[in-house]
Amino acid sequence: MASAKSKVTITDVAKAAGVSNSAVSYALNGKPGVSEKTRKRVLEVADSMGWKPNSAAKALSAARTHSIGVVMTAGSKLLGAEPYFMELLAGIGVELEKEDYSLLLRFARDETEALRVHRNWIAAGSVDAVLIFNVEIGDARVELYQQHPEVPALVFSDPSVSGTLTTVSSNDADGARQIVRYLHDLGHRHIARVAGPERFGHTYIRDRVFNEETSNYAMAYDCLHSDYLPEEGRECTERLLSLPNTPTAIVYDNDVMTVEGLHVALSKGLRVPDDLSLMSWDDSYMCTATTPSLTALARDIPKLGEKIVPMLYAMIDGKHVDNQLEPNYHVVTRGSTAAPHIEA
Amino acid sequence: MASAKSKVTITDVAKAAGVSNSAVSYALNGKPGVSEKTRKRVLEVADSMGWKPNSAAKALSAARTHSIGVVMTAGSKLLGAEPYFMELLAGIGVELEKEDYSLLLRFARDETEALRVHRNWIAAGSVDAVLIFNVEIGDARVELYQQHPEVPALVFSDPSVSGTLTTVSSNDADGARQIVRYLHDLGHRHIARVAGPERFGHTYIRDRVFNEETSNYAMAYDCLHSDYLPEEGRECTERLLSLPNTPTAIVYDNDVMTVEGLHVALSKGLRVPDDLSLMSWDDSYMCTATTPSLTALARDIPKLGEKIVPMLYAMIDGKHVDNQLEPNYHVVTRGSTAAPHIEA
Repeated sequence: MASAKSKVTITDVAKAAGVSNSAVSYALNGKPGVSEKTRKRVLEVADSMGWKPNSAAKALSAARTHSIGVVMTAGSKLLGAEPYFMELLAGIGVELEKEDYSLLLRFARDETEALRVHRNWIAAGSVDAVLIFNVEIGDARVELYQQHPEVPALVFSDPSVSGTLTTVSSNDADGARQIVRYLHDLGHRHIARVAGPERFGHTYIRDRVFNEETSNYAMAYDCLHSDYLPEEGRECTERLLSLPNTPTAIVYDNDVMTVEGLHVALSKGLRVPDDLSLMSWDDSYMCTATTPSLTALARDIPKLGEKIVPMLYAMIDGKHVDNQLEPNYHVVTRGSTAAPHIEA
Repeated sequence: MASAKSKVTITDVAKAAGVSNSAVSYALNGKPGVSEKTRKRVLEVADSMGWKPNSAAKALSAARTHSIGVVMTAGSKLLGAEPYFMELLAGIGVELEKEDYSLLLRFARDETEALRVHRNWIAAGSVDAVLIFNVEIGDARVELYQQHPEVPALVFSDPSVSGTLTTVSSNDADGARQIVRYLHDLGHRHIARVAGPERFGHTYIRDRVFNEETSNYAMAYDCLHSDYLPEEGRECTERLLSLPNTPTAIVYDNDVMTVEGLHVALSKGLRVPDDLSLMSWDDSYMCTATTPSLTALARDIPKLGEKIVPMLYAMIDGKHVDNQLEPNYHVVTRGSTAAPHIEA
């Protein structure tokens, strides 16, 4: 009986109710996004077809794989070069270990290949849940897992880009506010930022808050977007430093680009932090390797692991899990930031 | 019939033949370590009991998991800080992706926990093969997988510490020779090394060759051993620089300790490379983050991935696979090495 029920898909319910798959997903997961009338009809239709929210997940509980799936899309070059992301995975892995859970890792060349891996996982029941990073606006993975609630997906992003899926959100708005306030209080009145890709939800939020906060403080603000790659860190720094009015501080959306920005600044004979302050959004061991070491906005990774792993287990058990915020960021002050040097 | 055969274990054969499990493993895998007489008896006994080399692996071919297991034992702190190891895993992962294979990752607190994970994997058939790193002399994992040839293990170590298991060996002897020659040719006559743990097979080989080669070149050589941790990189550098006769060059057995050694040297007012040359065994993005950047002994990671993944597939198919050497190391010259400064 349980296995028969699990064969009723969201698509079946959507067809029978005459609504979209997304509407069914919103309705069944008790999330906003559909009218009460539609929700009622969907629940009636789903019930008549033998569907129960998470019935598939519950039916599968005897066949747990004890694996949490993660598909990386960056090439091996950037991967090794982004220690903060590996520290994050290791922090989660250490916590998963306590219940004998594994991380199932795939290294896809691009988004299309990544989506294929996710589809295969769903079809084969290869993982008990997935972690999804770097969500884009209109992300195909979000659409896919909305249609397959039998594989719970925990999304590292703002709920605004994650549909009905459960999210754990870094507090990007607060992080952006902390950085602007920190640099403002040091005395900076013109800052720049080398941001991540505009297609990512968290970039959108950071962009908005940086604009608002620098405006509130009456600070000048320049922003260039990148794909997080080292060479872009160099190029964007070159461009920012060739402006008629150069900023007195630059913030980078990852550690790798900050390191490259430092090298560009030093090679131009600039003193860091006396002539130019630099700061990394996301901390890692790499930020302590440079001279001067890099001031960074840091996550508390062990705390994050302790927070999200119980969420995963609850989702795997078919329980309703509320969206959560990551532990707050904090500024780790090192040698790359100081008061700006003002010409006499 | 196939499943009945797969239930004949190495231990069964060992008991019936009156020899040790290891002797059976050597004999069945066609490796040296037992006399021809013993090999003949073991093969006869195994044959009479229905055992065929790799019969278990062949019987399992229909139930492939398409996963390669890796258990990490370092904490998350060192993990994120050793980018070269993550670059290695990613290089393997990218290659595995072409055949839809995954890496199954576990983060064990210590060797005991790691061994428990391996035992569970064998019992549950969770992985098609495992990769084993950092093998110690008398390693319990080697003993375990020798007794369970149904789960092929590819060991990253010298064959001398890997029993009957198939190995892919970094050419540590050649790497050590390259470093000594490189520093000798720059003019150094007194070098030091901050090595990895003495319990690792590859450390033993590096130690021996560094001793031999520095002796051949009539160079003075000091060596301290560590657990690869950043703080040990600092402490060992402090100790080496407080010797009555300080070396003119220091080699570190990983990238993290080299970075820390650089910071100690700079904080003492030494100029790198004018007063002291520094060099990292194993290259990573981190080696380009410092000022000066770090000369390193580098692996060709994409080539390594292309070499070992076909070995894994052949082993999973139950084929005999010879031990292989990794592609050779090469020295990547950067800013941290130069001719020694000789007092006038």
